[in-house]
Amino acid sequence: MSEQKLVRNAAGRMVPAEVNGKEAVPYKGVGGHRPSGKKAAPPLATCIDYPASGNKLVPSIKDALKAAGLEDGMTVSTHHHLRNGDFVANATMDAAAELGARDLMWFPSASFPCHAGMIEHMKSGVIHHIEGSMNGPLGEYCSRGNMKGMGVLRSHGGRYRAVQDGDVHIDIAVIAAPTADPFGNAHGLTGPAACGLLGFALADSQYADRVIVVTDNLIDFPCVPWQIQGNHVDFVTTMEAIGDSSKIVSGTTQITKSPDRLRIAEMTARFVRDAGIMRDGFSFQCGAGGTALSFAIFLMDMMRDAGVKARFVRGGSTQYLTAMLEEGLTDYILDGQTFDLEGVRSMRENPAHVNTSPFTSYNYHGKGNFASMVDCVVLGATEVDVNFNANVVTHSDGKLLHGIGGWQNCLASKCTILPIPSFRNRIPVLVDEVTTLCGPGELIDVIVTERGIAINPRREDLLSAVSESDLPVRPIEELKAEVEDICGGPPAKPEFEDRVVAAIEWVDGTVIDSVRQLKAE
Amino acid sequence: MSEQKLVRNAAGRMVPAEVNGKEAVPYKGVGGHRPSGKKAAPPLATCIDYPASGNKLVPSIKDALKAAGLEDGMTVSTHHHLRNGDFVANATMDAAAELGARDLMWFPSASFPCHAGMIEHMKSGVIHHIEGSMNGPLGEYCSRGNMKGMGVLRSHGGRYRAVQDGDVHIDIAVIAAPTADPFGNAHGLTGPAACGLLGFALADSQYADRVIVVTDNLIDFPCVPWQIQGNHVDFVTTMEAIGDSSKIVSGTTQITKSPDRLRIAEMTARFVRDAGIMRDGFSFQCGAGGTALSFAIFLMDMMRDAGVKARFVRGGSTQYLTAMLEEGLTDYILDGQTFDLEGVRSMRENPAHVNTSPFTSYNYHGKGNFASMVDCVVLGATEVDVNFNANVVTHSDGKLLHGIGGWQNCLASKCTILPIPSFRNRIPVLVDEVTTLCGPGELIDVIVTERGIAINPRREDLLSAVSESDLPVRPIEELKAEVEDICGGPPAKPEFEDRVVAAIEWVDGTVIDSVRQLKAE
Repeated sequence: MSEQKLVRNAAGRMVPAEVNGKEAVPYKGVGGHRPSGKKAAPPLATCIDYPASGNKLVPSIKDALKAAGLEDGMTVSTHHHLRNGDFVANATMDAAAELGARDLMWFPSASFPCHAGMIEHMKSGVIHHIEGSMNGPLGEYCSRGNMKGMGVLRSHGGRYRAVQDGDVHIDIAVIAAPTADPFGNAHGLTGPAACGLLGFALADSQYADRVIVVTDNLIDFPCVPWQIQGNHVDFVTTMEAIGDSSKIVSGTTQITKSPDRLRIAEMTARFVRDAGIMRDGFSFQCGAGGTALSFAIFLMDMMRDAGVKARFVRGGSTQYLTAMLEEGLTDYILDGQTFDLEGVRSMRENPAHVNTSPFTSYNYHGKGNFASMVDCVVLGATEVDVNFNANVVTHSDGKLLHGIGGWQNCLASKCTILPIPSFRNRIPVLVDEVTTLCGPGELIDVIVTERGIAINPRREDLLSAVSESDLPVRPIEELKAEVEDICGGPPAKPEFEDRVVAAIEWVDGTVIDSVRQLKAE
Repeated sequence: MSEQKLVRNAAGRMVPAEVNGKEAVPYKGVGGHRPSGKKAAPPLATCIDYPASGNKLVPSIKDALKAAGLEDGMTVSTHHHLRNGDFVANATMDAAAELGARDLMWFPSASFPCHAGMIEHMKSGVIHHIEGSMNGPLGEYCSRGNMKGMGVLRSHGGRYRAVQDGDVHIDIAVIAAPTADPFGNAHGLTGPAACGLLGFALADSQYADRVIVVTDNLIDFPCVPWQIQGNHVDFVTTMEAIGDSSKIVSGTTQITKSPDRLRIAEMTARFVRDAGIMRDGFSFQCGAGGTALSFAIFLMDMMRDAGVKARFVRGGSTQYLTAMLEEGLTDYILDGQTFDLEGVRSMRENPAHVNTSPFTSYNYHGKGNFASMVDCVVLGATEVDVNFNANVVTHSDGKLLHGIGGWQNCLASKCTILPIPSFRNRIPVLVDEVTTLCGPGELIDVIVTERGIAINPRREDLLSAVSESDLPVRPIEELKAEVEDICGGPPAKPEFEDRVVAAIEWVDGTVIDSVRQLKAE
């Protein structure tokens, strides 16, 4: 392992000057980095090389990888719409191992605990390193310094951008498809592994040299709608099951039962109402966590009471968002992933439940994207500091545990609200300085805790909008002090080695922070 | 005008070695040309340069062209979904003229008689030349040798390919949108100029440096479905009317009333049935001409009688195809353009009436396309020769009068049938050698005339399939001789100058034939 050269970026964080052999650009501040050059250009294909019948079936993933020309050192991508029920990424790397491949870069749009088997492939040398979110066991493996290359964590939009810009060249994309035809047209709406949509695989289908579609629900051409277009696909193959449906989407998503979380959720909804964000034609986005869902339910009630209708809500969709649509409380759901069975059903049935992609929603190197048009977004965080900087990938113990998801991209919203408990397991969430910087404080507008609401002083408009309300607005420093009193001081600092094990990219591809190897316990 | 160097291509035709300053590749036979290199790569954009509000509105086309950086010599594209009712292409070139632009290349996906005003722009020097179909007056202008540059005629798929491959670099694309939002999302389903879909503008939106959307039906974000994605769009502007709806789609499409054409249409349907092509799960494509429509009606009757259902039919859609869909005679319409109001309504209402694009349907430099999966296609022709070579762009008088449309692309079908009258205005349609070669005989399987059916001798399978039927199958030479007897001999040869005024591209970008300047009368 050669010495790592670090540089200080515009946020004052030390970041690697080089990531996996490529020069890295240090973060330059929000809107500070202007890209040059052109989009990545895939090789020209010709119909001469594809069957006139449109039948691209090969017997197995292994055959498809062989036909796609799998070689040592290649980048192989998968997507995460099957979440913790995915069988395809593991089957792909198992097949690659059987073919004797070495030093692959695995480039998932996200990974889950079901992918823990990749650790064995890293130990044996099949996988060199992972660029993509590393949740749970993979994050721990990386944090302990066991991965050969450097982890790179990107937002959903950042991943699309990286592929589009040519930062990451995908040699072979493997796309798990709940329904597909032999030409490679595919969607996620039906089939035993239905997951709604396949937007996270869009960049892969457009830019990879070779694209393999894997399905357990092969139908006759045409597979409509073609969320993935067969014209991008080289090979199609089948598996008995591409996933465990019980782990792909929840049967139903659950709201929180914790009184504190309920209080936070309600205060968040009241803030959105009282600050004047909740008005006819407005828009919002919230996640599928218990607090976010409860927020949506409180807000729905307030919308009904006020006779207010949204123009659109952003998914991840759940039974609550689909109820809003079907009740007429919103014109559209613009959805990036479906979190429960109702979300999948609604996307299949409602033309106004629209599938989006990281290109339309989040790509910072596009001609605009949807994220900045959203009136307010309700997100989580593992830590927030007194400058409103936030962390979503590590906890205060320094261990890499979560991916970025769409979180960084959503910060472009007109009002970003983080409803969070002020402490977890007696460890403060409000801190002096976040362990890992994922989102710059200037983009984070409101923190809602069970002890009160802190508004970013930059947002004088919001401060003034709620000045007459009965919301418990308090300075963030005051909230932090109160929490430290309760918890007996700030969180203990984790002990790190010097070595950087993962780089955190900002939406524009610059490196905003590093994750260091944990000292052996 | 410098001396033109001509070379003989694989079809024996003399074609220019250079087209508008770029080296041209002579046609090498079907499947004979293998592309190298990569797709065109548009410049990277960044959200820094686009309004966070998503509002890209500018006051006028002129302002949009100015903001897009219009310069002399640029390539400006438009699409033809508004057909002979289009106001946008003319308004664009009028605005360019007002801005003092010179020597533009106009790159329409097709042109119509309503675009005759472009002749003035060519005379005044605003437009240097046109690459795209030139119907009627523009074709005549080109044929007479009045255009400064060389015309280039491409099929719909060939146009997508040319843009994708970087043969044509679009500086500014202007997209007429029946409905759009301020972000640039657009569709053709609703609004006073509803035309169904916008697939012909897809390549333009994806690959042009600058993209302008022009609408007369601006709605709030999000405009769903986004047939054109706002993420590709730079500017949005409005006009009082983007087209004359009465000329965009027909009120209703008309079947032929000519007894000869009806006989041809019925024989074509009988051929499709008796050759065994009409079977459960089959597919076909036919145009919107009177004979093609009558063919579809005859075939529908035969399908009902036999209890046969198609898997898909390809549009251009009409009231007859939508009736098939709604009656359950086909699972899907895969549609490239809607020809009548019923087609537009059906595309808006039926999820199984699917919009396609030249990328999915026709791009020869893709990983396959839909055209080769179609069981049979029913097309027209201006001339067919005894080797089954066909012409669609000139008549025997040598005058450029028609575009290629999807015609060349459709020849990839499993069975290509040309139902044509054996003569028109006492001029034979069956000839020794076509005036302009647009489609190689090896791809054309069956000619149906009022005097009998000629099957390409290469298709022994088809000859044998109908050998027991009562269809009047006859050698093509015999039909031709009979027609010459009636008409008093073969058509008179047109008199040409040496100069090539237009190049005819094959689907792979090679030059299959030339159109020469007509001798002054």
